[in-house]
Amino acid sequence: MITLYGIPGTATTAPHMVLEEIGAEYAFVLVERDADDVPTAPPGFLAISPFGKVPALDDDGLVLTESAAICLHLAATHPAAGLLAPPEDRHARATTVRHLMTLTNTVQPAYLRYFYGPRYTTDPAGVDAVVAAAVAELNGLADHFAGLLADGPFLLGERLCVADIYLAMLSSWSSDMEPGDRWWSRPALARHYDAVLARPGCRRAVEQEGGTLSSGA
Amino acid sequence: MITLYGIPGTATTAPHMVLEEIGAEYAFVLVERDADDVPTAPPGFLAISPFGKVPALDDDGLVLTESAAICLHLAATHPAAGLLAPPEDRHARATTVRHLMTLTNTVQPAYLRYFYGPRYTTDPAGVDAVVAAAVAELNGLADHFAGLLADGPFLLGERLCVADIYLAMLSSWSSDMEPGDRWWSRPALARHYDAVLARPGCRRAVEQEGGTLSSGA
Repeated sequence: MITLYGIPGTATTAPHMVLEEIGAEYAFVLVERDADDVPTAPPGFLAISPFGKVPALDDDGLVLTESAAICLHLAATHPAAGLLAPPEDRHARATTVRHLMTLTNTVQPAYLRYFYGPRYTTDPAGVDAVVAAAVAELNGLADHFAGLLADGPFLLGERLCVADIYLAMLSSWSSDMEPGDRWWSRPALARHYDAVLARPGCRRAVEQEGGTLSSGA
Repeated sequence: MITLYGIPGTATTAPHMVLEEIGAEYAFVLVERDADDVPTAPPGFLAISPFGKVPALDDDGLVLTESAAICLHLAATHPAAGLLAPPEDRHARATTVRHLMTLTNTVQPAYLRYFYGPRYTTDPAGVDAVVAAAVAELNGLADHFAGLLADGPFLLGERLCVADIYLAMLSSWSSDMEPGDRWWSRPALARHYDAVLARPGCRRAVEQEGGTLSSGA
């Protein structure tokens, strides 16, 4: 029995897409939080996720947090779906993990500074300058990933990997930014999102969350 | 043939410790950078690491960046060393990856804001407040990891995993902070560092880099 605890439109979306793509049977449990981001439902959620962060996974008693760790765990334990190359295909496997690391340790933190600027400075008057630096960094990262996708549509070429799913989630997070800052203003990233969303499993997950189904390109 | 490209005292240290711990034959190539962090040696390094970041690995033609990805790749391809539990030990394996993700996507970015504050705000007058927020976050994270190590000495109890090596590297990064902010001011983290450094392989790597060999506790 697999349970995904999450909130639509957050870092929940990538593991949600992975669950649909691997064809797993699972329950989705909505986490509710108060204005201070303290979880109010389901009861006992803080015992599952120490900081109350989403997503969290319970896979037959194995409790995990960290969106990227959950994605890797699900991809590795469902090899038939092909989202993580087998160990003997060491180049594809290591490259998938490499891109996933950049996404979770560089792109995702830059978005957090964009969305939650006040957490990143003790001076309320300094928030705008923190957000501006985050936007500049995000544009450089978008250029980097657009470059990686020049031969696309996916990061490994023709085959979808778990890092593509993570990238699609993160590129959608820019959809409310100024037009020139949106990741889909780069044609390679628009094509990438649409290719990921063309996968029925990924599409179902995004539909269930009320997310964006097309880059609009 | 394995080559690690790096700079002592940076995120190079964790893969360096892993290489020594798995008993690999490898060459260490020192990367040199100018005042703007642009690599000046070895020639052609930008082709290996697109942003000039360290560390980078060349494992028989498989080129990788991202310290955490390199650690996972080396641990997975040298299973006899036991730094990453085999797939059938799914709890230990997934938990190792979970902690490694928190270290690379939360602890490491907080340190980057501490060390490189000016990169994270467009207002030079706002740097101190960015650094202060980073220090506060790092203290909360140190408490979190100290709590995980209550039953230590390692994250999984008695067995060393690749996330312990990453944690040891990152806790050493606080050694020049104010005494109360140093991660080793928590006894569980001091004991953890000393237990990692008691491993001959880890110790050799840190010695070669001129790093800190003891928490001093």
